Amino acid sequence: MTALDPVRLAAELIACPSVTPEEGGAQQLLAQWLSAQGFAVERFAAGAAPHGPVPNLIAVRHQGDGPHFAFAGHSDVVPPGEGWTDPPFAATRRGDLLYGRGAVDMKGALAAFVAAADRVREHRGTISLLITGDEEGPAVHGTRAIMTRLAERGLRPDMILVGEPTSSSRLGDMMKIGRRGSINAWVRVPGTQGHVAYPHLADNPVARLVRILARLQTWEIDRGTDWFQPSNLEVTELVVGNPATNIIPGAAAARLNIRFNTLQSGADLAEAIRRIALEEAPRAEVEAMISGEAFLTAPGPLSALVADAVTAVTGLVPELSTSGGTSDARFLSALAPTVEFGLTNATMHKLDEAVAVADLHALTAIYAELLRRALA
Amino acid sequence: MTALDPVRLAAELIACPSVTPEEGGAQQLLAQWLSAQGFAVERFAAGAAPHGPVPNLIAVRHQGDGPHFAFAGHSDVVPPGEGWTDPPFAATRRGDLLYGRGAVDMKGALAAFVAAADRVREHRGTISLLITGDEEGPAVHGTRAIMTRLAERGLRPDMILVGEPTSSSRLGDMMKIGRRGSINAWVRVPGTQGHVAYPHLADNPVARLVRILARLQTWEIDRGTDWFQPSNLEVTELVVGNPATNIIPGAAAARLNIRFNTLQSGADLAEAIRRIALEEAPRAEVEAMISGEAFLTAPGPLSALVADAVTAVTGLVPELSTSGGTSDARFLSALAPTVEFGLTNATMHKLDEAVAVADLHALTAIYAELLRRALA
Repeated sequence: MTALDPVRLAAELIACPSVTPEEGGAQQLLAQWLSAQGFAVERFAAGAAPHGPVPNLIAVRHQGDGPHFAFAGHSDVVPPGEGWTDPPFAATRRGDLLYGRGAVDMKGALAAFVAAADRVREHRGTISLLITGDEEGPAVHGTRAIMTRLAERGLRPDMILVGEPTSSSRLGDMMKIGRRGSINAWVRVPGTQGHVAYPHLADNPVARLVRILARLQTWEIDRGTDWFQPSNLEVTELVVGNPATNIIPGAAAARLNIRFNTLQSGADLAEAIRRIALEEAPRAEVEAMISGEAFLTAPGPLSALVADAVTAVTGLVPELSTSGGTSDARFLSALAPTVEFGLTNATMHKLDEAVAVADLHALTAIYAELLRRALA
Repeated sequence: MTALDPVRLAAELIACPSVTPEEGGAQQLLAQWLSAQGFAVERFAAGAAPHGPVPNLIAVRHQGDGPHFAFAGHSDVVPPGEGWTDPPFAATRRGDLLYGRGAVDMKGALAAFVAAADRVREHRGTISLLITGDEEGPAVHGTRAIMTRLAERGLRPDMILVGEPTSSSRLGDMMKIGRRGSINAWVRVPGTQGHVAYPHLADNPVARLVRILARLQTWEIDRGTDWFQPSNLEVTELVVGNPATNIIPGAAAARLNIRFNTLQSGADLAEAIRRIALEEAPRAEVEAMISGEAFLTAPGPLSALVADAVTAVTGLVPELSTSGGTSDARFLSALAPTVEFGLTNATMHKLDEAVAVADLHALTAIYAELLRRALA
């Protein structure tokens, strides 16, 4: 029996046009490959419109007592956009690179893990793959639905690896042991419209909004932790919509985002924003949307296991980072220690997304080494 | 010979649909009435597209040595808008009121002055009427073109009365001896777009703009003068236009207006705004548009003359005010002492604009009394 070639698997996955929420054939391929190597595969659609149904897949290979190692990921990709050199779903290989939407985020990692599991047929305990088709979209009926299904089946991983592209400039230079949380908030300030020549008869909502934003901008939310940079606030939108130069407008609004560390909770931040807004504008309305709480898997056995496997294959000692955006690890970390490690992220979500063929082979070796060490 | 009836004249002027820049027949009527009482009338079109041609009228009755008293005004009106009880150009009389667009701003005053000049045929010196068809519009080729034409003809008024509706709740309770200046400015701040998760790679222009606006809002421009309230700044518009919650936008802009007194000049204010903007955002761009400088005709012979005429007819002592918006007096005051006195302004620019018939008669009496006193 020939070993599965991660480059061929990656190319076949890239050829599936699985832009969120389309399944595009990608999970069908995974199911076929995993069944062939002894996984029990369950595919299910979760949720209904407007955020569903979402195609999800759980594959489990149970081989007696031992730990449960879960690999989590997603088969969906962000829209390719216009302007690619090659068609984005053609999986074109030129030189040392394989091009296509999802090459690094994260069909390449899916292919590497499938190939790794194939190489590590002998193991104790359990290997599972938790694959959603909605990580790049609303993510309402994706990984969270998978977690519900796991609970229903009495399955609980002991360690979780998310295959997001965490490497920075070279494969193996960085892994993630946590992510900041994220909250968006609209601050809407009503006022009293009037003529600029008679400001005493009006109540300028822009003046109040500027005072609110000036306070929010200078607010030192925290000073960071050993593992996180300080929580950070950015104002991302301002809206008035007043074409008349001589009119004080009747309302003004701003949208802001906070990326926050484990010293904060989304609810506390929303309350703090509301309090500051109401102090400057008693009629202000604050609408907060918590995208995800911060999480941290403190450095320990799992991060050491992953780092050792990376070092064994690449010679690099990966930096343990908590930078960057959010990922589904924010949900999964509630189940078990969770870290993220995968390909380089330089081209993720960009035109001409590409993965180095050598990296696909190396990542397969890393994942296989990891499985051997975790389930020896 | 029967005295001219200001109510009939006002009704005939209202019936001319002279929405800026249309002449609508209004200046033709004025020319006809004024010629009949011995005025030399010159009508001329000034300027070209996009802010012209503008219909203007100069009428002069010279009767030997003596001062030159000029009455300045406009025959154009703002658009009527939808929702009038009666058609806006029908000059409907119901009860004690005459309704129509321009009834108080300022066809009623034009009618009153024409009737007053008719009653004061015996005078020394010169009476002139300086009537533009573009006061409510861009005002580029209106009163300023009339001033140029006056200079070409060697005419220079010694005192100027602008017939704007300056009375507040009763005819005669207020006149204007000055107006604040007005400047609008756009502050545009470029930044560097980026992901909110990586603010160190971006430069948030909203943050800089908020700092600029916070400083401008707390800037004490001045504390006012004996005749003017403090200069006042209002932010009237904010623009970003960023739909993405996770993106730091690439640019942000705000528009502001300052109504300023005679301690300031438009150019100095523009420079101060620019300086503050550049201190917070070295790449900021400030585009300032000076609508008009402040002016003041310090209380003196002209204001006393007008006030005395008002008191003689109404028994009221008019307040000497500098409040409100701008008027063409900002241009004319460069020629000679200029004050403004006219009808009540409660319905100006509004639906169902109306003038009290009694006020038209009283204003005619005031203007006539004024001419007698000025040119005795």
